Amino acid sequence: MIDFKFEILFESKKSKARVGRIHTPHGWIDTPGFVAVGTNGTLKAIDNEMVKQVGLQLMFCNTYHLLLQPGIEIIKKAGGIHNFINRKLPIITDSGGFQIFSLAYGGVLDELKSRGQKKKNQGVLKISDEGVVFRSYRDGKKILLTPESSIEAQKALGGDIIIPFDELPPYHTSSNTLMRSLERTHEWEKRSLAVHLKNRKNQAIYGVIHGGIDLSLRKKSCNVLTSLPFDGFAIGGSMGKNQEEMLSMLNFTLDHLPKELPIHLLGIADLSSLASCIPLGIDTFDSSYPTKAARHGSLLTKKGLLKISRKIFANNFNPIEKGCSCYSCTHFSLAYLHHLFKARELSALTIASIHNLHFMVELMANYRQKIYLSKI
Amino acid sequence: MIDFKFEILFESKKSKARVGRIHTPHGWIDTPGFVAVGTNGTLKAIDNEMVKQVGLQLMFCNTYHLLLQPGIEIIKKAGGIHNFINRKLPIITDSGGFQIFSLAYGGVLDELKSRGQKKKNQGVLKISDEGVVFRSYRDGKKILLTPESSIEAQKALGGDIIIPFDELPPYHTSSNTLMRSLERTHEWEKRSLAVHLKNRKNQAIYGVIHGGIDLSLRKKSCNVLTSLPFDGFAIGGSMGKNQEEMLSMLNFTLDHLPKELPIHLLGIADLSSLASCIPLGIDTFDSSYPTKAARHGSLLTKKGLLKISRKIFANNFNPIEKGCSCYSCTHFSLAYLHHLFKARELSALTIASIHNLHFMVELMANYRQKIYLSKI
Repeated sequence: MIDFKFEILFESKKSKARVGRIHTPHGWIDTPGFVAVGTNGTLKAIDNEMVKQVGLQLMFCNTYHLLLQPGIEIIKKAGGIHNFINRKLPIITDSGGFQIFSLAYGGVLDELKSRGQKKKNQGVLKISDEGVVFRSYRDGKKILLTPESSIEAQKALGGDIIIPFDELPPYHTSSNTLMRSLERTHEWEKRSLAVHLKNRKNQAIYGVIHGGIDLSLRKKSCNVLTSLPFDGFAIGGSMGKNQEEMLSMLNFTLDHLPKELPIHLLGIADLSSLASCIPLGIDTFDSSYPTKAARHGSLLTKKGLLKISRKIFANNFNPIEKGCSCYSCTHFSLAYLHHLFKARELSALTIASIHNLHFMVELMANYRQKIYLSKI
Repeated sequence: MIDFKFEILFESKKSKARVGRIHTPHGWIDTPGFVAVGTNGTLKAIDNEMVKQVGLQLMFCNTYHLLLQPGIEIIKKAGGIHNFINRKLPIITDSGGFQIFSLAYGGVLDELKSRGQKKKNQGVLKISDEGVVFRSYRDGKKILLTPESSIEAQKALGGDIIIPFDELPPYHTSSNTLMRSLERTHEWEKRSLAVHLKNRKNQAIYGVIHGGIDLSLRKKSCNVLTSLPFDGFAIGGSMGKNQEEMLSMLNFTLDHLPKELPIHLLGIADLSSLASCIPLGIDTFDSSYPTKAARHGSLLTKKGLLKISRKIFANNFNPIEKGCSCYSCTHFSLAYLHHLFKARELSALTIASIHNLHFMVELMANYRQKIYLSKI
């Protein structure tokens, strides 16, 4: 037994949306919930104590980045990722797969443009059934990451939820390649799970559903992976070239996943996707979008995106959002924040990021409220 | 009458050091005290709420920078600098003179190297008895700053302590030029004071003593300025090319300043200078050194400067300083901070800056303790 449990508190009468609570050894996560991305063990421009105060219940850390800096050994010596970064609340780590294949094929946008050609000199040296050999961008060392070593790394990190090693095939690929990739991913996930089950260490593991936008492959992935004792599922791989493709894929895929387990959508939490995906029954969403937008001066408000650099804010002594209870809105005005951005002050990035994260926390609480009322 | 008073609580039996308290409309400043530099109305990488929590009693804001961005009118509309930046505690503003002449001659180090030659295209268009015409680096507009307009700007900002407009002659200059510059500075300070006295607005004004390292000129400056009703004095101008020159100048100058008024040393608060200058009777010191050092990974500790990028800290799970009660030391380890610096995370800069500022606050409290015990 592990201290992990998904409790469904309410199911909407209008859609497949549900209110739930994921219990972990470091506390619970209310769902639908937003998951903050703290790649290197910190969110950008906000320390972990402040993240706690904002009320973020789950934080994503990236095994790939932590593997290269500071290295798993140091985090192990610190007593695990929670101790190392001083976060007492739940943490989820990924397998490193996504970052490695992003290196090979570039980011999602790059990749859509490049039509699946591998980028050159991006650090990935060899992909085989064993795993992936890549070169550290830090010290040039060759590193072999396999399902086994990824899980071992995630065991040492000690996140509350871990993710099996998977392959991320490009969007532009032949159906043959996609099918072979899916088979390899399933093998890798099985090997990952086997290593995990030998030593669960009070961690939960989510299977990652692949198959791109090929519905038959998505169905196959669901069939293969739901037959294994995963504690939840994440939906990964290519989500298509636009939201329509993503939604039709998700709608289909969710019908093939068990209702009683938590479902995570990997890397997507823009406002429009949240509005569309929560009614499909997705429980958690991670994205660096709110903090990245903040650093570019884009503030999330109920009335839409507010570009703080606009001249009209130079003279506006109201908070970012009237009535907002966040640290930033209760202390600073639009005019001051506009000024700090103009003056290129680092404190601007912190103030903006805190507001955007608070917005996400509130937004998800509102979604839960709406589900209770079966309004969505 | 204004709500400004300097109270001497104790005088050392061993030196001219004293413990005091400067009372201002926004609270008191214990002296000897460190003054944080918040050029644009914020310290670098720390928001003003956090600055308050660190316990910094006085913050320096630069009129020159605020004049160009966001402009005085906006701060006036906000109800003054305290409202605009949301700081309820004391603020001191300077006249803009220092920055303008830094533009003309470069910074202190540049200037020592350049031997007093004016830099080209640095924005200063004309210096006359009336004031200085310079070009805004923001929008290219010509701006005339005079003793009158500097004080008017500082009236609109509403700092608790303001500073008259002065000329900053270069270190390498003929004694004739230095003498003429001193006369101009005295005229400018008198004009500044006259504008101030017409409308005190509950602000105190410190005269700025000039004269470079020429002791007879320093004496003259003291004689001229102490005959005027300033509320305190700041020591400005060239401090010499090394600490020895500075200390002999300061030792001499302080003998010619009234004991009952607070004395500020402009722009200097490195640890060695503090140790030497507190026994001479200097009460407040401003410097951006602690925050700048922090952003470069240099942490202040009782054992000396700690370079966080050193490999030995990768594995050190102690706080920056054992027993330190600061936000950073009570939440994060050396190993984590080392990692954040290596990963170039912005949160590293905030965590390091908070520690260094807290160090300064504690250091000054310790100095006050030592003075009470006549140990210095």
